[in-house]
Amino acid sequence: MDRVKLVFIVFLICFLPGSGFTQSHPRLVLTEKGVSDIKSNLKKLPLLNQSFQETIQEVDLEMANGIEVPVPKDMAGGYTHERHKKNYLILQKAGVIYQITGEQKYAVFIRDMLMQYAKLYPTLPQHPEKRSYARGKLFWQCLNDANWLVYMSQAYDCVYDWLKPEERKVLEHDLFRPYADFLSVGNPQFFNRIHNHSTWGIAAVGMIGFVMNDKVLIERALYGLKDDGINKDQKDNDGGLIKLPEQPGAGFFIQLDYLFSPDGYYTEGPYYQRYALYPVMLFAESIENCRPELKIFEYRNHILSKSLFAVLNLTDSEGLFFPINDSQKGMSYLSRELVSAVDIIYFFGGKDPTLLSIAKKQNLVLLDNTGLSVAKGLAEGREKPFIKKSIEMTDGANGDQGGVGIIRAGDPTDELCIVMKYTAQGMGHGHFDKLSFSMYDKGKEVIQDYGSARFVNIDQKNGGAYLPENNTWAKQSVAHNTLVVNETSHFKGDFETGNKYHSYPYFFNATGKDIQIMSAKDTNAYPGITLHRTMAVIEDKAFGKPLVVDIFRVQSEKENQYDLPYYFLGQVMNTDFEYSVPTTLLPLGKDFGYQHLWKTGEGKSGNKNVKLDWFSNERFYTITTVVSPDDQLLFAELGAKDPLFNLRRDQSYIIRKNKEKDAIFVSIIETNGHYDPVNEISANSFSTITDVEILLNNEQYTSITFDTKTGTKWMLNISNTDVYKDTNHQVEIAGKSYSWVGPFELTKNK
Amino acid sequence: MDRVKLVFIVFLICFLPGSGFTQSHPRLVLTEKGVSDIKSNLKKLPLLNQSFQETIQEVDLEMANGIEVPVPKDMAGGYTHERHKKNYLILQKAGVIYQITGEQKYAVFIRDMLMQYAKLYPTLPQHPEKRSYARGKLFWQCLNDANWLVYMSQAYDCVYDWLKPEERKVLEHDLFRPYADFLSVGNPQFFNRIHNHSTWGIAAVGMIGFVMNDKVLIERALYGLKDDGINKDQKDNDGGLIKLPEQPGAGFFIQLDYLFSPDGYYTEGPYYQRYALYPVMLFAESIENCRPELKIFEYRNHILSKSLFAVLNLTDSEGLFFPINDSQKGMSYLSRELVSAVDIIYFFGGKDPTLLSIAKKQNLVLLDNTGLSVAKGLAEGREKPFIKKSIEMTDGANGDQGGVGIIRAGDPTDELCIVMKYTAQGMGHGHFDKLSFSMYDKGKEVIQDYGSARFVNIDQKNGGAYLPENNTWAKQSVAHNTLVVNETSHFKGDFETGNKYHSYPYFFNATGKDIQIMSAKDTNAYPGITLHRTMAVIEDKAFGKPLVVDIFRVQSEKENQYDLPYYFLGQVMNTDFEYSVPTTLLPLGKDFGYQHLWKTGEGKSGNKNVKLDWFSNERFYTITTVVSPDDQLLFAELGAKDPLFNLRRDQSYIIRKNKEKDAIFVSIIETNGHYDPVNEISANSFSTITDVEILLNNEQYTSITFDTKTGTKWMLNISNTDVYKDTNHQVEIAGKSYSWVGPFELTKNK
Repeated sequence: MDRVKLVFIVFLICFLPGSGFTQSHPRLVLTEKGVSDIKSNLKKLPLLNQSFQETIQEVDLEMANGIEVPVPKDMAGGYTHERHKKNYLILQKAGVIYQITGEQKYAVFIRDMLMQYAKLYPTLPQHPEKRSYARGKLFWQCLNDANWLVYMSQAYDCVYDWLKPEERKVLEHDLFRPYADFLSVGNPQFFNRIHNHSTWGIAAVGMIGFVMNDKVLIERALYGLKDDGINKDQKDNDGGLIKLPEQPGAGFFIQLDYLFSPDGYYTEGPYYQRYALYPVMLFAESIENCRPELKIFEYRNHILSKSLFAVLNLTDSEGLFFPINDSQKGMSYLSRELVSAVDIIYFFGGKDPTLLSIAKKQNLVLLDNTGLSVAKGLAEGREKPFIKKSIEMTDGANGDQGGVGIIRAGDPTDELCIVMKYTAQGMGHGHFDKLSFSMYDKGKEVIQDYGSARFVNIDQKNGGAYLPENNTWAKQSVAHNTLVVNETSHFKGDFETGNKYHSYPYFFNATGKDIQIMSAKDTNAYPGITLHRTMAVIEDKAFGKPLVVDIFRVQSEKENQYDLPYYFLGQVMNTDFEYSVPTTLLPLGKDFGYQHLWKTGEGKSGNKNVKLDWFSNERFYTITTVVSPDDQLLFAELGAKDPLFNLRRDQSYIIRKNKEKDAIFVSIIETNGHYDPVNEISANSFSTITDVEILLNNEQYTSITFDTKTGTKWMLNISNTDVYKDTNHQVEIAGKSYSWVGPFELTKNK
Repeated sequence: MDRVKLVFIVFLICFLPGSGFTQSHPRLVLTEKGVSDIKSNLKKLPLLNQSFQETIQEVDLEMANGIEVPVPKDMAGGYTHERHKKNYLILQKAGVIYQITGEQKYAVFIRDMLMQYAKLYPTLPQHPEKRSYARGKLFWQCLNDANWLVYMSQAYDCVYDWLKPEERKVLEHDLFRPYADFLSVGNPQFFNRIHNHSTWGIAAVGMIGFVMNDKVLIERALYGLKDDGINKDQKDNDGGLIKLPEQPGAGFFIQLDYLFSPDGYYTEGPYYQRYALYPVMLFAESIENCRPELKIFEYRNHILSKSLFAVLNLTDSEGLFFPINDSQKGMSYLSRELVSAVDIIYFFGGKDPTLLSIAKKQNLVLLDNTGLSVAKGLAEGREKPFIKKSIEMTDGANGDQGGVGIIRAGDPTDELCIVMKYTAQGMGHGHFDKLSFSMYDKGKEVIQDYGSARFVNIDQKNGGAYLPENNTWAKQSVAHNTLVVNETSHFKGDFETGNKYHSYPYFFNATGKDIQIMSAKDTNAYPGITLHRTMAVIEDKAFGKPLVVDIFRVQSEKENQYDLPYYFLGQVMNTDFEYSVPTTLLPLGKDFGYQHLWKTGEGKSGNKNVKLDWFSNERFYTITTVVSPDDQLLFAELGAKDPLFNLRRDQSYIIRKNKEKDAIFVSIIETNGHYDPVNEISANSFSTITDVEILLNNEQYTSITFDTKTGTKWMLNISNTDVYKDTNHQVEIAGKSYSWVGPFELTKNK
C-alpha cells in the first residue's frame, strides 16, 4: 500500500508539467518530496546521516566566524578568492540544513550573507586581475563567478519560500539577475562556448533561472545566446579557441551534443571532465526536477550516464584520474564533483549497483533524493564491485576523432595498466602528445605522464593559475612518452594546427587470454611522417607479472632524428650498457621543452638489446630495447630553465636514433619481483627477457620475437595495413613461412 | 590448584641448575614446557594461531620446492646468498612446526638439509668474494655465516632428540663444531669485537654450544677468546676499528656492558641496534632457559629491557627508525628482529602492557613461550598505548659520550618531531654529523637525514653492500642538516679522529607546556671552533602548529666560511628573496660531499629575514632565517659525480656566511596549513612569523625575538655557559633589562 502511494507521488513529481510544478520551492536539487524523504530516513541510513552531521559541523563552525564578504582583490589561493569560494560552498550547505532541520538560524545566515552580496555586487567593476579572457567580478574569471552562482542558486532555492517577497525582490533585482546577465549577455565569449567553462556558465544561469522562474534565463541556458558576436579566431587566456570551427549553436543541449563522444569521453580529458560534470549533472537534475518532460537523462542515448562511466574508467586502480592533458595529479573519483555525478546517475540512471561501490569509497552522499537513494542502496547491501576492464573510448562528438585505449591486466588489487592516447587535440588544455602512453602498476605510476605544470588554488604559485612552464614544458611532446622528431613538438607546438587533426585508432583487442593489444597511427603531427604505435600486454606463467610490449614505427622519406623518451619513476638500479655522466650539466636542447631537460648521461651499445633496470615502490622494472650501434641512450632530468622551481625533478630515459628515415623502436617492459624494506629481502629482481629481435618490419608487416630465460620463444606478428579479422596473412622470414588470420598473432614455442 | 601446579613447574624450569636441565631438548628458545603450552593454547589465541598458520604455509611452500644447498658463489642479493639465507630462515621455522605438530616430515626436511650442509661444509674454502675483513664460507662475510648458525642452532635444537645419535655425531663433527670454531678461533677479528657483527658471532657460537652442551663453546660465547692477537689499529672493510681503545675483554657480558649506554642507546644508531638486538635477545633467552642462574635479564640494571625501549623511542610516529648514521630508510619496528625483542622483553621483562600495543601493530608473535604470552595478553585485551614522549638518551657505555635528543609535540596522530644528534662517532657506521637534526611532521620526513647510500640485499647495487657514495656523500657533514666549516667535514672526515670524541649535551628540557628545548655543543669537530646548537619546539594558539626554533652559534678566532644546509623534502613554493638559477650546472665544491651537489640557485637579500616556502605531503612549510646582506642563499641538488645513479636526487637550501669569526644562524620553521588535492583547497598556507631578530649574542647569552602576524611578540633568552636551574640571569638590551632564572626562558607579550 505504502509502496503504491510512493509510486504515485513519484509519478506526480516526475510527470506534472513544469509550469504547474515550479510554484513550490525548493525545486532545483532538493525538492519538497526529497526533503520529506530525507527527514524520515535520516536516522536509518548511516551514510546519509554521517554526511549530514559532517555538513552541520562544518557549517556551524563557519557560522560561528560570522559573515565576511570582502571586496574582491586576490587571485586564486589568495584571501578574497578563497573567502568567496568558502561562502558559496557553505551557503549551499546551510540551505540544505535549513530545509532538513527547519532551524531558522541557517535561513537567517543565508539571507544576511546574500544581502551583503546584493549590496556589494552593484558596486563592483571587473575584478582587478586582468589576465582572463573573461574577467569576473567576485573572482578573477567568470568561471569562478559561475561556480558561485551554481552553489548560491541552491542556497537561494532553499530559503526562497522563507524570505519575504521584498527581500526576494532586492536579491533578484540587485544580485541574481544582473549576475546572470553578466555571465551570459555580458560575456558571450564565456557563455556561448562548448567548453567546461561555459558548462558552469550555463548551469549557473539556468539554475538561478529555475529558482526565479525566469523563462528568459532558462531559455538562454538551454539554447544559448542567439547573437554572440564572437570572432572565429578568438582565443582564451590558456590558448584555447573560443568557438569550435563547426559549432552549430550554444546552450546546454549543444553542450551535451558536442562535449562528449558517443562513448562519453570528454576531449579535454578526465580532469576537466570531472570539473564539467558537476554543473552538467546538477543542472540536469534541476532540469529533471523542473522540466521533466525534457527527459534530460535519456538525451542522446543516455549520454550523461555514459560520461560518468567513461570518467570512472579513466582512473587508475586507486581511483585517481589518468593525468591526460592539463591535469593536476591527485584528483580522483573521491572529489565532490564525482560524488554528485555518482549519486545523480545512480538515481536517475537506473540504479546501477556497481556505482554503489564507488559511493562507498567516496563515503559521502549528496543531501538530496539521489544521495538518499544511494545511502539506502548501501544500507541494504546492494553494492557490486565496479570492475574496470580494458576499454577503448572514441573521441569527438561523432566518435570519429581518435580515442583512448586502456589495457588492464591482473587482479584489481595488483593491476598492471597502460593507457595510450590517440585522441584529438583536447581543446586549449590539450597536450602535443600523439600516441603517448603511461603505465601503472599496483595503483602507482611507473612510466608517468607529467600532467600539468600548475598548483591549483595555491596562491604562491602564480595565483594558482597555469604556470609558464605548462606551455614551455608540460604541453610539449618531449614531456611525454612518445616520439619526437628533430627536437620539435607535434604540430610544431601550434595549437591551431593541432586542433585540426586527430590520430587514428588502428585496432584494439582485449579479448585474448594471453595478449591484449592496441594499435594507433598518426599522420599529421609531422607532415610527411607516419607514426604507428602498437602496445600489448602479455600474460603468461613464464614471467610472474604481465609484460608490456611497445612497438613504435616511423615512416619518413627524409632523414630525421627520432627521440623516444620514457619517464620512468624511481631509481636507476643498473644498465647493461656503458654510459658516461657529464661533469657539467647542460640543457638537452633549445626549445620545445628540451630546454628544461638537463642531459645527465649518454651511452651507446654494441649489443642488439640494452636493458635499464629501475626500482620504484618496492618493485623492480626492466625495459629491454632493441638498438643499433648508432643509437644514443640518453638520461635526462627535468629542471633546467626553471627560475622559480615550478617543475618537478623527474627523470627520463631517451632512445635516440639519428639520421634515419623509416625506423622502428621495440621495447619490452617488465615488472620484476619485489623488495621488502622491513625484511630487506629482494625476490626475482632481475629481467627474464632475452633476445628481443625485429625479424621483419616493412609497409605491410612487423614481426618481433623474444625469449624468456626458461627457454620459451615468443613471436608477435602484426599486419600494418589490414585490420580485418578474417584476412589471411603470410610472411616469409629467413626462408621460413609464417601465417595467421587477423591483424595480429602471438605464438610461443618451447 | 592448576595454578599452583603451573607455578611449581615454572619454578622447576627456572631454577634448576643449568647442568641438570640441559639434558632435554628443545632448550634454547623453545622449551619442552613452552611447546606444551603452545599446543594447548594455539586454538584459543588468534594472533599465535595466525602466526603459526602463516609459518606452516610458508614452510610447506618451500618444502615443496625441495632442498637446494648450492656451492657458495654470489654476493648479497645473488642466488647462492639468498638461497642459503632462505634455507636457515625456513629450517628454523620447520623446527618449530615439528615441535608443535609432531609431524615427522618437518624433522626429515631439517635432517636432510643439515646433512647436505654437513657434506658441503668440510669441502668449502673461504667464500670467493674477497672484500670482507672477515670472509665467511657459505657467505661473503662471517656475519652472514653467523646469521646462519643462530637460526640453524634453533632448528637443530628442535630435532635433536628425534635424530639418531650417529646422525648427531656427523652433524656436530662435520658441520656445527667446525662451523663454530671458524666463527670464533678462526676469525678472532670478527668474534672478539664490541660490535653488531660479533653479537651475531657470539650468539651463534653460544647457541650451538647450548644445544650440543659444549661447555667450551658456551664459555667462549659468554667470555670471549682469551688471546685474539688483534692489532689495535686493525679495521674492518667499512672503516670501523676492530677493537675499541679501552676494550677490557670480549664475549656476551662485555657486549652488554659496552654496546649500550645506561639508557639503552646503541652507538651505531637504531638501524644497527635493531640488527644487533636479534642475536642479543635470542641468546639472552637461550641463556635464561639454559643458565637461569645468570639472571641475564636483570644484568646491568635491566639493560636488555632498556635497549628495547630505547630503540622503540628512536622511531617516528609510523614506527620507522630515525635514519641516524648508516641506516637504510624503510626499516621499522615491524621487522622480525623487533618482533623477537618485543616478545622476549614482554615475557622476561615484566609484561609491560605498552609493549602489547607494539606487538599488535607487528601482527606477528614468536612461536615460543614469549610469543604465547604476548598473544595471551592481546587476547585478554591488556594492551596500553605505547606513547612516545620527548626524551634524551645518553651515548657511551657510561653515558658520558654525548647523546640524542628527541622532542615530540602534538597528538601522536599528527606529531611534530625533531631529533638532534650529539653522540659519539657511532663506530664504523657513524656519520660526520655533529649537532645535526631532522624534522618529521605527521609521520613524514620534512627535513631529512639522508641515511646510508646502500641498497641492502639488492644485488644490482654493488651486491647489496655499501656504495662508494656512502663514504663520499652519506657520511660527510654537508649531507646533513648541520654546520660545515670551510667546505670540510667534521674531523676532516677522518674516522679515527672522530672516534676519539663526542659532542656535549648542554641542556634538555621537555617539561614546559609552551616550550620544549634542547641544546648541545661540540668543540672537537673543528679544532679551535665551538659549535653550539639550541633547538626548541614552541606550542601556542597563536600559530596553528608547533614551531621549531633553530639557533646555531659558532665561535672561532679565525675567519671561516660557514654553511648550514637544510635538506627539505618537497617542492619550492616561493621565496621572498631574489635568486638566480644557472644555465649550466656545476658542482658546489670539490670534496667532502660537495662534489656530489649541483649548485642550482644562488641569492642574497637586503632584508633582515628571508623566507623559503615549500610544499610536501599536502602541507606547507616555511623557514624564516635571519640574514645579513653578505650571506649567500644557495640551492643545491644531489646527483653530481654519481656515475651509477646511486644517489637520490634530493635538494638542499644552504645558508652560507663568508669570512666570519663568531657567527649565529637563527631560523624558525613553521608548518602552515594544508592542501587538499581532491577538493583543491589550500588553507593557511602562508607563514605567520615576522621580524625574527637576534637581540643579543655573546659568550654568555643569546636572546632572540620574533612576532606573529596577530601581534604577539616572543622572546627566547638562553644562557650559553650556565645550565643550573636556579641561577639568576640578567641582561641589558637596548637600555632595557631582562631577567630570568635557569638556562633559558620564553616570554610572550601582546
